[in-house]
This record gives sequence, C-alpha cells and structure tokens, in this order.
Amino acid sequence: MSQQAVKVGLIGLGTVGQGVIRVLQKNAEEIARRVGRPVQVTHASARDLGRPRDTDLAGITLVADALSLAREADIDVLVEVVGGQTVAKDAILAALARGKPVVTANKALLAENGNGIFAAAAEAGVPVAFEASVAGGIPIIKAIREGLAGNRIDSLAGIINGTCNYILSQMTVKGQSFADALADAQKLGYAEADPTFDVEGVDAAHKLSILASIAFGMPLSFPAVACEGITKVTAQDIQIAQTLGYRIKLLGIAKRSAAGVELRVHPTLIPDDQLLAKVDGVLNSVLVQGNAVGQVGFYGRGAGGDATASAVVADLVDVARGLGAEAHRHVPALAFQPAAVQALNLLPISAIESCYYLRLRVADEPGVLKGLTGILAEHDISIEAILQKEPRGDDDATVALITDRVAEQRFDAALAAIQALPFVREGAARIRVEHFKD
Amino acid sequence: MSQQAVKVGLIGLGTVGQGVIRVLQKNAEEIARRVGRPVQVTHASARDLGRPRDTDLAGITLVADALSLAREADIDVLVEVVGGQTVAKDAILAALARGKPVVTANKALLAENGNGIFAAAAEAGVPVAFEASVAGGIPIIKAIREGLAGNRIDSLAGIINGTCNYILSQMTVKGQSFADALADAQKLGYAEADPTFDVEGVDAAHKLSILASIAFGMPLSFPAVACEGITKVTAQDIQIAQTLGYRIKLLGIAKRSAAGVELRVHPTLIPDDQLLAKVDGVLNSVLVQGNAVGQVGFYGRGAGGDATASAVVADLVDVARGLGAEAHRHVPALAFQPAAVQALNLLPISAIESCYYLRLRVADEPGVLKGLTGILAEHDISIEAILQKEPRGDDDATVALITDRVAEQRFDAALAAIQALPFVREGAARIRVEHFKD
Ligand SMILES: NC(=O)c1ccc[n+]([C@@H]2O[C@H](COP(=O)([O-])OP(=O)(O)OC[C@H]3O[C@@H](n4cnc5c(N)ncnc54)[C@H](OP(=O)(O)O)[C@@H]3O)[C@@H](O)[C@H]2O)c1
Ligand SMILES: NC(=O)c1ccc[n+]([C@@H]2O[C@H](COP(=O)([O-])OP(=O)(O)OC[C@H]3O[C@@H](n4cnc5c(N)ncnc54)[C@H](OP(=O)(O)O)[C@@H]3O)[C@@H](O)[C@H]2O)c1
Repeated sequence: MSQQAVKVGLIGLGTVGQGVIRVLQKNAEEIARRVGRPVQVTHASARDLGRPRDTDLAGITLVADALSLAREADIDVLVEVVGGQTVAKDAILAALARGKPVVTANKALLAENGNGIFAAAAEAGVPVAFEASVAGGIPIIKAIREGLAGNRIDSLAGIINGTCNYILSQMTVKGQSFADALADAQKLGYAEADPTFDVEGVDAAHKLSILASIAFGMPLSFPAVACEGITKVTAQDIQIAQTLGYRIKLLGIAKRSAAGVELRVHPTLIPDDQLLAKVDGVLNSVLVQGNAVGQVGFYGRGAGGDATASAVVADLVDVARGLGAEAHRHVPALAFQPAAVQALNLLPISAIESCYYLRLRVADEPGVLKGLTGILAEHDISIEAILQKEPRGDDDATVALITDRVAEQRFDAALAAIQALPFVREGAARIRVEHFKD
Repeated sequence: MSQQAVKVGLIGLGTVGQGVIRVLQKNAEEIARRVGRPVQVTHASARDLGRPRDTDLAGITLVADALSLAREADIDVLVEVVGGQTVAKDAILAALARGKPVVTANKALLAENGNGIFAAAAEAGVPVAFEASVAGGIPIIKAIREGLAGNRIDSLAGIINGTCNYILSQMTVKGQSFADALADAQKLGYAEADPTFDVEGVDAAHKLSILASIAFGMPLSFPAVACEGITKVTAQDIQIAQTLGYRIKLLGIAKRSAAGVELRVHPTLIPDDQLLAKVDGVLNSVLVQGNAVGQVGFYGRGAGGDATASAVVADLVDVARGLGAEAHRHVPALAFQPAAVQALNLLPISAIESCYYLRLRVADEPGVLKGLTGILAEHDISIEAILQKEPRGDDDATVALITDRVAEQRFDAALAAIQALPFVREGAARIRVEHFKD
C-alpha cells in the first residue's frame, strides 16, 4: 500500500469547495488512518483567484482555468464543486477522458446531463461519485446503492430541499405567509436572492431523479418529474391540515408498480405522527421502502459547507481505495451495472393514485355540503375527513376535506365539476396526501 | 467480468438463514443486475438437516457439519448465521484460513471475539462483513464506516435493541408494568423465552461495542461497556418522565472527549421533541454526531428474517465486487486500517457527566423539599425541573427531579447523602438524561 498522498484537484472554492479543504485539513489524521494514506488538495481553481478566502490555501497550487486543472497530469481525482452546467461538465468530461475519477456535488448537472457523464465514466473505467449531490451530509446515495443492494426498492420519499422545508416549518410554527417566510429565509441565508429553483421544486426534482435512478436502475429522467413548488401553499392550508392531523412538506416521491414509475415533487400532507412529518427546519430526510428491509429512514443536514464536504470527502475515501482497480470492482454509478440500467415506463402525473386534500371557498348557504359530497359520490370518491368553517368577516365559508385513495384523473374530473357549482368560489387548493405506513 | 454465479456457503437455516435464501431468491434478478453476476446459495448447513424448512432448498447442497461447509473448496464466501460462540467462530476462522471472505450477523461473537477474527481476516487479506450484526436492515455500519468517513465521529447513541424498545413503548402507551409488557412481548415473539440478554442490556452492549470501534477506530471493547438493563424501569417513572416532557428509552451511548471514551447502555430520558424519542415499538434508530456532518439519524427494522437478510445480502454484494481484489482495496473491518486501530482510554462510568432524573419516595411532612434541595446545593448540583406528588393511598409522597449536567461521582455522592435523610424511603430511581441538540 502506497503511503503517497492521494492528490485532489478541486474546482470551485465557494461554500462547498472551502468546506472540502477545511474538512480534509481538520480531519487529516483520521482520514489517513482510514484510507491508509493522506488525502490532500494539491490544485484548486475558482473564477476569481484573487478573492480572499476563509480557508488556508497554503501549499495548494492555484490554477486560473478550471479546464486546465481538470487536465492536470499531477492529480489523482477531480472534485467539481463549481455548479452550473458548462464549465462543470467540460471539466468532468476532460478528467474522465484522462482516466481520472471525479467527485461532484452538482445535482443540476447530473440530473440534466448525468446519462452522458456516466457513459463517459463507464467508457473510461473510472467512477463518478456524487454523494454530496443529494441530501448533503446524509449518506443516502450509498445507503440506497450499497446498503440496500439486497432489496427491490419499491418507493422512496424525501424532504430533499432544505429551503422549502425551512419555509414550510416557519409557516407552520409562526403562521406566516409564504412571502414572509421566504423573506426571513433569505435574510438568514437559507434561501437565495433568486429562490426560484428551490421554491418551484426544481432542485428537489433534480435530486429526486438521481435517487430514483439508483433505486430503480433506470437512466436519469429529470424531464419526466412532475414538479409543483410551494409558492401556492397558504398559511390557512397549513393550519387546516394541522387541525386534521397532518403536516405539509415538500416531498420528492418515486414509486414503482407494475404499471410503471411515478416521479413527482409537490407539497404533501403527511400524518403528523409519522417521523417524516417531524423533520423540521433546514433538515433533510429520506424514507426508502425495500421489499426485504421494509421502511428505512435517514435524516440530517442537507446543505452547508461542512455537511456537504462530509459527503465529498466520503466519496474521496471510496475513490482512493479504488484508484487503479479494475472497472468491475467499482460500485456502478447508478447502482446497477451500466448494461443493466433499463428505461422504465414513466407514468404521467394524471395516472397516479393518491389521497387528496381539497380546500374550497364556498357561499355561506344551505345545500353546499350536499352538493359537494354528491359530486364526490358520483365519482366514487370516499371522504376520510371533512371540516367546515363558518365565515369570518367576509361572506364566504371554507370547506376542507381529505379523500380516500383515488386516481388523480378521477379526482380532477370531480374537482372540475365541483368548481362549476354555483356556490363554489375561485381559488380551490388541492394538495396530495401520503401515508407512509410500513 | 465473469458471469459465473458467486457461490455462497450458508451455515444456519434459522430466522436469518432462511431470510437470506428467500431474499436472494426473490431479488435474484435485481441483485445480478447490481453485481454483474448472480449470487446463489450453493451449500447450506444446520444442526438438524431433517427439519422441515419454510424456504425452498432445491439446488442447495446440504452439508451435515458446519465446519466441513466452511472448509468447502467450492464456495466463494461463507455466511455465518448460526449464532453463539463456538461453532460460529471455528467456522469463520476456517473459512478465513482458506482465503474465503465471511459475512456474519453474529454480534455476540464479534463483540467478544472480534479482535481475533479481524486479525485473522487481515492476515488472510479477505474481508469479514457484519452489517447485519447491528440494527438489522439499517445500513448503519456502512454509514459510519464509509458514508461518514470524512468525519471525526464524536458520539453516537442508539436504540439498538428492539425487544427493550417494544417493552418500554408498551409500558408508555398502556401504563403496563415491566413484567406485563415483557410477557406480552414474549407472546408476540418480540422477546425470547429467556429474555436476559435483551432486557439486561447485554445485546445492546454487544452492538454498541461494534459501533464504537468503527466510529472511533479502536479495538472492540465489550468488557468496558457499562451496562444497565430495563428491568428496574417502572411505569411510574415513565409516567413522571412524560409529565416532565421526556420519554424513557434504552440507549447505547458512545462518546469521546479529550479525557477518553465512554461506552454505556442504560435506560435514558430523552426530551420528547427529539426524533429519537419518537422511535417506538421494535424499530431501531441510531444518531451519529460527526465534526463535519453534524447530527445524522437512521431508523428502521432492527430484526426479523428479511430485514436482517437485507443487510447480509448487501454485504454479499460488496464482497462479490471485492472477490480477489488486493487487500488494501477492501474497506477495513473496523473502518480504520488495521495498523491504525488504536486503543483509547476507556472511562469508567463513574467518570462520566450527565443530567439525572431522580425519583424518591419520601415521608409526607414539611421540610422535605428544603432538605433535598439543600443537599443538591451543597454538592453544587442545579435542578432543571422538580415535581412533587401528594400521597395517594399510602403515607408516602413522591418527589421527582431532573438535574443539570453534573459529574456522576458528584451526583452519586449527593444521592447517598439524600438517601441517608430520615424522611427518604427505600427504592430511589436514578436514570440518566441525554439531550441530543445539534
Ligand atoms: N452550498 C451547499 O450547501 C450545497 C449542498 C449540496 C450541493 N451543492 C452543490 O455544490 C456545488 C457548489 O455549490 P456552492 O454552494 O459551493 O457554490 P458557490 O459558493 O457559489 O461556489 C462556486 C464556486 O465555483 C467557482 N466558479 C464559478 N465559475 C467558475 C469557473 N468558470 N471556473 C472556476 N471556478 C468557477 C466560484 O469561484 P469564485 O469564488 O471565484 O466566484 C466559486 O468558488 C453546486 O453544484 C451546488 O448545487 C451545494
Ligand atoms: N433473528 C434476528 O432478527 C437477528 C437479527 C440480527 C442478527 N441476528 C443474529 O443472526 C444469527 C442467527 O440468528 P437467528 O435468529 O437466525 O437464529 P436461529 O433462528 O436460532 O437459527 C440458528 C440456526 O443455526 C443452526 N445451528 C445451530 N447450531 C448449529 C451447528 N452446530 N451447526 C450448524 N448449524 C447450527 C440452527 O439449526 P437448526 O435450525 O437445525 O436448529 C438454525 O438453523 C445470530 O447470531 C443472531 O444474533 C439475528
């Protein structure tokens, strides 16, 4: 076993990049004791190399251009924590072409270009590791890909965007509106100046597509994810859900059945006695259902420099052990051998079945409940719970209900009929409900 | 990559052994797609080969003697799910001596003889995998050993005995006594006829010593685990704890500090708003605190044939990828390279610091609280909460309190002084309290 250090080339010196340097420095001894040799960042690159950094870059060769760094002969592995598509992708492909393993935290890149990148890696016979791309420090990729490798994985569901979870948690605790909770999250650095990717569910959809591929052994299918963000969730819905015994979370859900695979990100009511419902603030959590293990749950910090670096460094430890090994020894990127990755039938969101929460503003007049329940009965939809609130101040009353499991198409047909009722006002809220009974 | 099946020799056809056969059969296609070749049990052994089994043994060569099976030339890997010390150990060492990797679920054997077994494995240059030995299907060994390999792990705490968690959960929900809850657990098959190992905390101590070794990189140190079971926990303590905002769980706790390492298993009060407090019934859960990742939590089924087999098969997948690889490529058994495993200073339980729950029966007379609080103040112990209950039926009152953090020695000195007070009756309960704030 060589005692020479594993030489890491690092592109990106932002939150995660500096975290990687910091963690490799502060845990240098532990890491070397695990790997059998030291792991060191020898080369680094950023957009503006003159910018002062909080971490100690002594001994690290700074390279002006990310692509040159990726082509540097004197590194053993490339860590990509730049983000975005262009530079990141070019650098990763350049390193792979030179037979260098890659570690990346870039979920957007993998979700949108992962199939090409993994093909290049398989071609080169070196791994691309990406534990940090989903749920930060939680080793969820490793858990699904290796720890649950004995299972047929049937479904997974996760709180995989800390920004949305923070906002929804604040709306729940403080009764805030979405806009106010978002503004607070921005002040605290939990949401970006342009929060679109987070609050519209795109970031969660990126991560979900990665998790689903390793769970089911299918190519990355980001465009097939049905994606609905949290911008329309109101404090009123959160409060009614609480009254009915539920919490509202933004979930990424992947399920497979004989019919095909569902991939969806949307606000979801979860019974408040389930552990997932209790994961609050910026924490992430993922539930996995395997046909041997049953339900397994994971939670922890989904973001932050050190937590994300924890995952990057874990990948580096794996990569270090595999340096120079025959390709068939590497854990395959998508958990299944490249030749065994199979496209599966991806279901449109209209084909799913779910329970539904429906909240309506209705005229305060007799016959409303009868009209509503009549339409639901006509569509053969059972009601699990119903709540009627007398008007306060204005003329409209509120009715909220939760249905039993029903095909989305059937529910939407009933909803259209309900919205055509003369006493039903604009602005219905319809939110899916999930139960994670083991 | 060879398409030949990985040939598994299986000793033990009980709950776990049959689970392994069942899971390998039902998920054969998924597993082969992951590994790149099939994984099959080709040889099996049990005590009584004539006994009818629930699983399909067609195509499996039955071998009368476990040791002969371990020495069988035509297997690639040995799975040991016999349990106990003698046969299991001999078979494992025999397989290792022949250069065969081993997968085992035997926490008792590893806790008591693991150092010798791992030394033999290192000598032979083949892995001994043991994911199933702790927390059943939860991939906690892999998470700590690989997924958190970038961290210095500072502490871990877990609900790692499902029998005790079930009993305590039932005592909490139903107000049952320990004896009644145990009897029910036995009827349901959640506790064995002789429950000693479980309820006295020995099984949890076995598991804790395994987790602590891979977390801290130290030899297995089962004899150093301070171990207290749940037999003395009363329904009254559970109820008072609830009133004060706590749940009582049997925890295995491993912590390290500059002073040394604490290893302890004991009933513990946990604030009821923490996720660990909400893990009920036979579920297991482990919290790990790393210096990069912060706190990460895991939960799932800690026992049962299929859940435990999920872990055994995951190990088989890892072993299959590593078959014939150079020894330095294997993940080291105790997470750290054998030469880097270091004995650490193991602290006696008297050296720990904790918060304490104290429940006393006292005479119903004036001056009791003053006497108690006076002694605590003399010992410089602050009180976080106190509860006094008027006598019901008999002449004694109950006082319960929770202290701030204090050295165990100091607390015990105060407790001795308290017990010497004339108005304090026999039968005080003292239970440690832990907070897992991130
Ligand atoms: N932040 C988290 O908690 C987190 C968690 C999980 C995953 N991730 C992922 O990790 C990646 C990095 O995130 P981050 O938060 O660390 O981003 P960041 O703080 O914005 O840092 C990005 C870094 O990339 C550098 N960079 C940008 N363009 C470059 C170029 N053309 N050539 C070389 N360097 C360039 C920047 O240089 P300058 O510093 O000179 O501008 C900066 O150092 C992203 O893919 C993100 O999705 C982040
Ligand atoms: N059960 C769980 O949920 C669980 C969970 C985690 C870990 N584990 C561990 O897994 C191991 C097995 O547990 P288990 O519950 O499966 O035990 P079990 O149901 O009692 O099965 C033990 C098996 O070993 C066989 N056996 C006993 N002595 C033998 C010998 N001398 N030679 C060959 N075979 C022999 C028995 O044969 P017969 O069937 O002919 O008697 C039986 O098939 C133990 O180490 C246990 O701690 C169990």
